[in-house]
Amino acid sequence: MRLGVCYYPEHWPEDCWAQDAALMRASGLTRVRIGEFAWSRIEPEPRRFEWDWLDRAIAVLADAGLGIILGTPTATPPKWLVDRMPDMIAVDRDGKPRGFGSRRHYCFSHAGYRAEAARITTALAQRYGEHPAVVCWQTDNEYGCHDTVQSFSAAARDAFRLWLAERYGTIATLNAAWGNVFWSMEYRAFDKIELPNLTVTEGNPAHWLAFRRFSSDQVVSFNRAQVDILRRHSPGRDITHNAMGFYTGFDHHDLAQDLDVLGWDSYPLGFLEQFRFTAQEKRDFARQGHPDIAAFHHDLYRGCAKDGRWSVLEQQPGPVNWARHNPAPLSGMVRLWTLEALAHGAELVSYFRWRQFPMAQEQMHAGLLRTDGKPAPALAEVRTVADEIAEIGDPGAAPKHAALVFSYPSEWITQIQPQGEGCSALWAAFSCYTALRRLGLNVNIVAPDAPLDDYALVVVPCLPIVPDSLSASLGAFTGQIVIGPRTGSRSDDFSIPDTLPPGPLAPLVGGKVVLSETFAQGAGYSGDGWEITRWHDRFEGDVQAEIIADGGAVACWKSGRTRYCSGWPEGALIQEIVSRAARDAQLECAPLPAHIRRRTCAEHIFEFDYASAEVRITPNN
Amino acid sequence: MRLGVCYYPEHWPEDCWAQDAALMRASGLTRVRIGEFAWSRIEPEPRRFEWDWLDRAIAVLADAGLGIILGTPTATPPKWLVDRMPDMIAVDRDGKPRGFGSRRHYCFSHAGYRAEAARITTALAQRYGEHPAVVCWQTDNEYGCHDTVQSFSAAARDAFRLWLAERYGTIATLNAAWGNVFWSMEYRAFDKIELPNLTVTEGNPAHWLAFRRFSSDQVVSFNRAQVDILRRHSPGRDITHNAMGFYTGFDHHDLAQDLDVLGWDSYPLGFLEQFRFTAQEKRDFARQGHPDIAAFHHDLYRGCAKDGRWSVLEQQPGPVNWARHNPAPLSGMVRLWTLEALAHGAELVSYFRWRQFPMAQEQMHAGLLRTDGKPAPALAEVRTVADEIAEIGDPGAAPKHAALVFSYPSEWITQIQPQGEGCSALWAAFSCYTALRRLGLNVNIVAPDAPLDDYALVVVPCLPIVPDSLSASLGAFTGQIVIGPRTGSRSDDFSIPDTLPPGPLAPLVGGKVVLSETFAQGAGYSGDGWEITRWHDRFEGDVQAEIIADGGAVACWKSGRTRYCSGWPEGALIQEIVSRAARDAQLECAPLPAHIRRRTCAEHIFEFDYASAEVRITPNN
Amino acid sequence: MRLGVCYYPEHWPEDCWAQDAALMRASGLTRVRIGEFAWSRIEPEPRRFEWDWLDRAIAVLADAGLGIILGTPTATPPKWLVDRMPDMIAVDRDGKPRGFGSRRHYCFSHAGYRAEAARITTALAQRYGEHPAVVCWQTDNEYGCHDTVQSFSAAARDAFRLWLAERYGTIATLNAAWGNVFWSMEYRAFDKIELPNLTVTEGNPAHWLAFRRFSSDQVVSFNRAQVDILRRHSPGRDITHNAMGFYTGFDHHDLAQDLDVLGWDSYPLGFLEQFRFTAQEKRDFARQGHPDIAAFHHDLYRGCAKDGRWSVLEQQPGPVNWARHNPAPLSGMVRLWTLEALAHGAELVSYFRWRQFPMAQEQMHAGLLRTDGKPAPALAEVRTVADEIAEIGDPGAAPKHAALVFSYPSEWITQIQPQGEGCSALWAAFSCYTALRRLGLNVNIVAPDAPLDDYALVVVPCLPIVPDSLSASLGAFTGQIVIGPRTGSRSDDFSIPDTLPPGPLAPLVGGKVVLSETFAQGAGYSGDGWEITRWHDRFEGDVQAEIIADGGAVACWKSGRTRYCSGWPEGALIQEIVSRAARDAQLECAPLPAHIRRRTCAEHIFEFDYASAEVRITPNN
Ligand SMILES: [Zn+2]
Ligand SMILES: [Zn+2]
Ligand SMILES: [Zn+2]
Repeated sequence: MRLGVCYYPEHWPEDCWAQDAALMRASGLTRVRIGEFAWSRIEPEPRRFEWDWLDRAIAVLADAGLGIILGTPTATPPKWLVDRMPDMIAVDRDGKPRGFGSRRHYCFSHAGYRAEAARITTALAQRYGEHPAVVCWQTDNEYGCHDTVQSFSAAARDAFRLWLAERYGTIATLNAAWGNVFWSMEYRAFDKIELPNLTVTEGNPAHWLAFRRFSSDQVVSFNRAQVDILRRHSPGRDITHNAMGFYTGFDHHDLAQDLDVLGWDSYPLGFLEQFRFTAQEKRDFARQGHPDIAAFHHDLYRGCAKDGRWSVLEQQPGPVNWARHNPAPLSGMVRLWTLEALAHGAELVSYFRWRQFPMAQEQMHAGLLRTDGKPAPALAEVRTVADEIAEIGDPGAAPKHAALVFSYPSEWITQIQPQGEGCSALWAAFSCYTALRRLGLNVNIVAPDAPLDDYALVVVPCLPIVPDSLSASLGAFTGQIVIGPRTGSRSDDFSIPDTLPPGPLAPLVGGKVVLSETFAQGAGYSGDGWEITRWHDRFEGDVQAEIIADGGAVACWKSGRTRYCSGWPEGALIQEIVSRAARDAQLECAPLPAHIRRRTCAEHIFEFDYASAEVRITPNN
Repeated sequence: MRLGVCYYPEHWPEDCWAQDAALMRASGLTRVRIGEFAWSRIEPEPRRFEWDWLDRAIAVLADAGLGIILGTPTATPPKWLVDRMPDMIAVDRDGKPRGFGSRRHYCFSHAGYRAEAARITTALAQRYGEHPAVVCWQTDNEYGCHDTVQSFSAAARDAFRLWLAERYGTIATLNAAWGNVFWSMEYRAFDKIELPNLTVTEGNPAHWLAFRRFSSDQVVSFNRAQVDILRRHSPGRDITHNAMGFYTGFDHHDLAQDLDVLGWDSYPLGFLEQFRFTAQEKRDFARQGHPDIAAFHHDLYRGCAKDGRWSVLEQQPGPVNWARHNPAPLSGMVRLWTLEALAHGAELVSYFRWRQFPMAQEQMHAGLLRTDGKPAPALAEVRTVADEIAEIGDPGAAPKHAALVFSYPSEWITQIQPQGEGCSALWAAFSCYTALRRLGLNVNIVAPDAPLDDYALVVVPCLPIVPDSLSASLGAFTGQIVIGPRTGSRSDDFSIPDTLPPGPLAPLVGGKVVLSETFAQGAGYSGDGWEITRWHDRFEGDVQAEIIADGGAVACWKSGRTRYCSGWPEGALIQEIVSRAARDAQLECAPLPAHIRRRTCAEHIFEFDYASAEVRITPNN
Repeated sequence: MRLGVCYYPEHWPEDCWAQDAALMRASGLTRVRIGEFAWSRIEPEPRRFEWDWLDRAIAVLADAGLGIILGTPTATPPKWLVDRMPDMIAVDRDGKPRGFGSRRHYCFSHAGYRAEAARITTALAQRYGEHPAVVCWQTDNEYGCHDTVQSFSAAARDAFRLWLAERYGTIATLNAAWGNVFWSMEYRAFDKIELPNLTVTEGNPAHWLAFRRFSSDQVVSFNRAQVDILRRHSPGRDITHNAMGFYTGFDHHDLAQDLDVLGWDSYPLGFLEQFRFTAQEKRDFARQGHPDIAAFHHDLYRGCAKDGRWSVLEQQPGPVNWARHNPAPLSGMVRLWTLEALAHGAELVSYFRWRQFPMAQEQMHAGLLRTDGKPAPALAEVRTVADEIAEIGDPGAAPKHAALVFSYPSEWITQIQPQGEGCSALWAAFSCYTALRRLGLNVNIVAPDAPLDDYALVVVPCLPIVPDSLSASLGAFTGQIVIGPRTGSRSDDFSIPDTLPPGPLAPLVGGKVVLSETFAQGAGYSGDGWEITRWHDRFEGDVQAEIIADGGAVACWKSGRTRYCSGWPEGALIQEIVSRAARDAQLECAPLPAHIRRRTCAEHIFEFDYASAEVRITPNN
């Protein structure tokens, strides 16, 4: 695994560059990621390019022996471009423009901006595509950051209508598929369909799901246009993009099909603070992040990546600026996070950023250097871990224990129709992931069409739409299976299957769900050390009630090698169910305390202690 | 009392209809409510009507012996209509359009839409008005649902100006009545008056009250236009509308004057979850609803109805889809709710809906049948209760114990000017209702102009504007009276009376309010087992301080047969006061536990146990 | 000190005026404040003035011996004016207009409205400028009330561009100063710069700071235009304005340079309820206000005023109408508040208002008289305190103990970039003020350029931008100094200084801040009876760690006579630090209980008991 760093030569006087590059190398870094926000410096006025400074910056970095990851600058179109085509601006759900003054101020559906993005990508690719130091391209930056996938603009509306016409063929098909007879919502033509925002009450969930799919497809096709240009002008280089944490605005399985390597940006402390962890977890892990945050995404994006190639393109090195509170990592955590990426198979960990920039929005975001150019605390850890990684070498492939099936449309569906507060497919997946990891298991988070043969245990936490491929692979699977609520509960167009949930998985599960209810905390059903929280499915079928709550509510049904978790898959209940399944799967489990996690590789076993920031690496013999 | 069900033949294949109708009858149902969302099927294109399917549906239902309640479909104008008159769309308080894509996407003040509503109503009435199976018409559906009474559109503004000109005659009168000299808010002409939204800080409360009255009047006149058409073309049929729970957006006393029967839609579990019950109540009654929710509305709408005729047009039969959490009713609750409607004098309980529709917005809303056509748990309870009702027959008239006086403008006033958080006239009424019911009393919730002679006790929880009729009826009343804070505190145009509150009731109350203060929880005045919460009135007059808090604050003043509650009328304080008043009124009280409620009728006494879902029916001898 | 009252003759029948005036005088009042909302009565139609009523009102009041404070009515432009120039309306951050119907419905940058404001001010000044009874003018009313300083209108945008061009000279200078290279935010011309709202994510903090400064300057120049007119036409009269509580929307140091006397509006109960006090404080002081609320503003605005002349232009006399809860003051509090103003050096306390107005927005706002014209409880206290004040006479100058340095841009910076929740410069100042007052000290809240020689102790709670004048005065200061976090952490254009914080104060502090972190409650560092909350600075330098938390985090660094508080300056930690500094400064401290405050004057010592509402006045011998 290589180490790298994100660098913005345009922020610093040219006479610093060589010194910076030398120190990077001396710190064990061999990759440098540049350029993704530099459009106003590359093309300060329409059609007037200034390549000189970038030529020189690349030369200096290359001369120091750094391989360059070069970003296309399309996340930050300059003001002159916005002034020329003001309607390229995205529109939010309330109908307000999302204007210039920060970043990501474009609508993915705007044809004019797409042409401009292609133009600047082509210009960059033509100039640097064959530069020997350019080893990788990054398209744009963090698609979807600041909730920018969905745009409610006229451009989006027009593109959505075309997308719908292509998907459904006739308006009658669409009306039937969406159940538009309900509330007289029928359309007479595709060009009468509006975007689903600004309705009096909730819109048709089928309408929303179509819009979420469309919006995701727009990201994928926007990205593909850049990839096509880069492949044409820069043969042999990897192409990557940096995904985010706990973010499902577009389908990463789709996007990754066009990339060689899928990157992601790892900010464990900011994520802990901003996402739905308990107050207790936020206190216990304030300077570490919850022990599953980084690994969950490592295992998720590895499963998204076309050939399993992935990296950390931005690694938090100190306090950030964007969470409600921004603590400093515990001493040792930067090393720990780096080694955990290694254990999970990363190609690269790139720290964000080299030197803290004393101006503008991210002035309080730490780098490896302080604003005064002196080393920040993380730099010493980076030096140490660079040596350790060299010593460890390749930790070897990780044996496959459990597969966790997740799809992006699952999360769209539970967002569109939670039915009970907090019932989210993404967080169901995270809870199941934690439960499996607390047993010391390796987990692969896979798409529904992934092969399952090599696993001993498959968990499907919440997958409303079950594709045929999954029905087939689960049917053929010989290990243990755990299925969670809402799985198989929807058709491709958001209707309940005629046969009731779990639809195509009914034979496997041995029954069907005849009633689903949700409830507040404290209004569920209690068991012996566990509880049915949030959700409960009533079941009919020829199956065995394996786990039963005090009043008789069944928490887990068992049919052959398949368990159905009829409460929301979280906490002690899902821990109990996956423990039983893992035992039946004859997986060797080693229950771990709340702050310890393990990753078993062919050559080494890694143990990460999130309380002390210590890492134990032992040979796997 | 009859039982019925809401049915959407347009959602189901025609070959199901006969079977559905037969099963309805076999389940004890004799009424079926149809048509209220079917505009796009009745008139799929402008002026092209498709009556055939509806003719056949009505025939099938009628042939099965079901009486039909036919709805006008004006709550769901089709897309082609919106496209023809885009400004028919209502505008929200922030100035955003409330567009097509769900329902109720119209502004009550739009003349063009009013004409269209009249046109479709006429067409329906002409076709089915004399059909022998059509026994009742329902106008529109749930006026005001999704906060749709107030529209801040240009159409509303223009209509509001006309309404004001009619009410006030001259602009000088309006300026004087509203106190517009304050902050130089004077207008020079009616056509200069704006809607009260989008002001820098709160608008003039008199301006808001006028707008609330206007908005209510627009609903009433919109409804009346349909009623007039239906009466013309469908003589002898009842006309009804379905009101909602805890909803005060328009004046139901006014609306009901044009109806034969007032219906309402009873969703006890959803209401418990969505409205201001305590966390404890939400837990204790999660699968039952608070024991006063259904009865409060039964007694409220019976009091609104012109001749006391009322019904439940939609009865929750299982989990719904629209609350934050959506639990399943406890087994037995559907029966209990049905019998409670009987005890309170309903003509009809109609379950919503027949079969759960697997698509669109309400796909998670239970019906009597599941989406797969099999019986949902409620169906068996319906069958049972249908038999029981037949056996019971008419429970007889309920003796009058206590009257609770409520008016819709009271709630508008406390919403416009709460003065202290949570000081709502509606919830004051609900609290007083609970206090009376905990004594085992029958309660009638009546308009301020209702006759009071037959009661032993009258409670006026919070009635800022006291009409002359009420002053007169209370003056002549010989029973016990309880008056709550803010009563008589406002003129018809939202000013404080010269004589101070309680204005015209001062002689009765024996004093006046010289200072009102509000406070947070814990900052009130404590008594012996009770507390003065939220609000306190200081009093001057020749009256007796009956109940006094520790520091000397008076909680209840007594003058002759009248008590004035000077704290907010809720909790233990109002329980104590109404208990004293009931005792003085020589009402036979039977204090009940928190989960039991009683309804005494001439023939039977009903006791409803909200803990166990049991109902005890005993002869009243 | 004089007492006065706010009076609206236009609200009352003319035959009340003389009686009102006589009762004012009999109650000990000698000043009456009128006119500030009367535009629609002075000029009911464009260019048609009605002076007669105002002539007579002034005559009646003057005849009774009352000195008149006359307000310009520009806070409430009449409807006809808005109709003539609809774009004078301000626009909120979301782009919504802030229309007519309450008050303050104008954009400070609208040239047309500025001309109208000058016109009405000139008309008033010409008519009454030399009237012998007119002793003072008040400009407008509560600039900024209802968040009205910032407007996002076209007028504001255009004026902002001019302001920027004047400040920065060239666009390159601006781009460099703001760090616009970050995210390609560079502008090519001043007329391409947008307002900072409606960006996709947070805008550049330098952009926001410039907009905050511009917005403040617009208020100052709007006010100055009125002052210039009034000075021209009304020589020898004082000019004042009424500031608000906990309000920092414009720079009061700047505004006060154009005024003779700075007034403020004191509503201790409303402020307690609406601002960030703890639940415990809100309960304990519900009917008194927190004991530092009034004094903090007395000492703040005295420090803002050009020559230290200040007054209370509105004093709460009973329950108000605008807080979430509105309790009545404890008996005695109106007297206490009045005496506390005396002790802190006020020229005038003017009660708001004379008689409660029974209509419009403030109908629930108490006055000295009730709506029925009878005395409200406060009137008797006013009469009493008027006599006491006469008896006390001049309490004498207050000896200088501690100076607290505060600047308005400090609060703008911490609002723009809190970095950790609740890290506000204003509230840091309030916490330090409380800590000093709990020691029984006199506190002067001063601008950064104030002379510091006469103090024994200077506290700088949080002053990101340290001007040269402060570096100089602190460098020359021989007393004890306490510096809080973020001080010296920013350049004038919101960038981190090259030398790291505390920038120019590094020599004084003896080190620099190398890392800042923020954290949630419970995730800080505990000490012995105190805690490091919200924020922590790591420090490098040749200084002594004076106070150290359990794990080793340093809470206070000491270098010579300067202490650096490296946690957020609040609670027990700042109490400990200022106690040490006061001791080292040899200030005579007298630690006070939580509900007692003291003010030491040359002639008298005042002790205010916020639990019992008692005041102890003893001679200072
Ligand atoms: Zn981001
Ligand atoms: Zn509804
Ligand atoms: Zn104000």
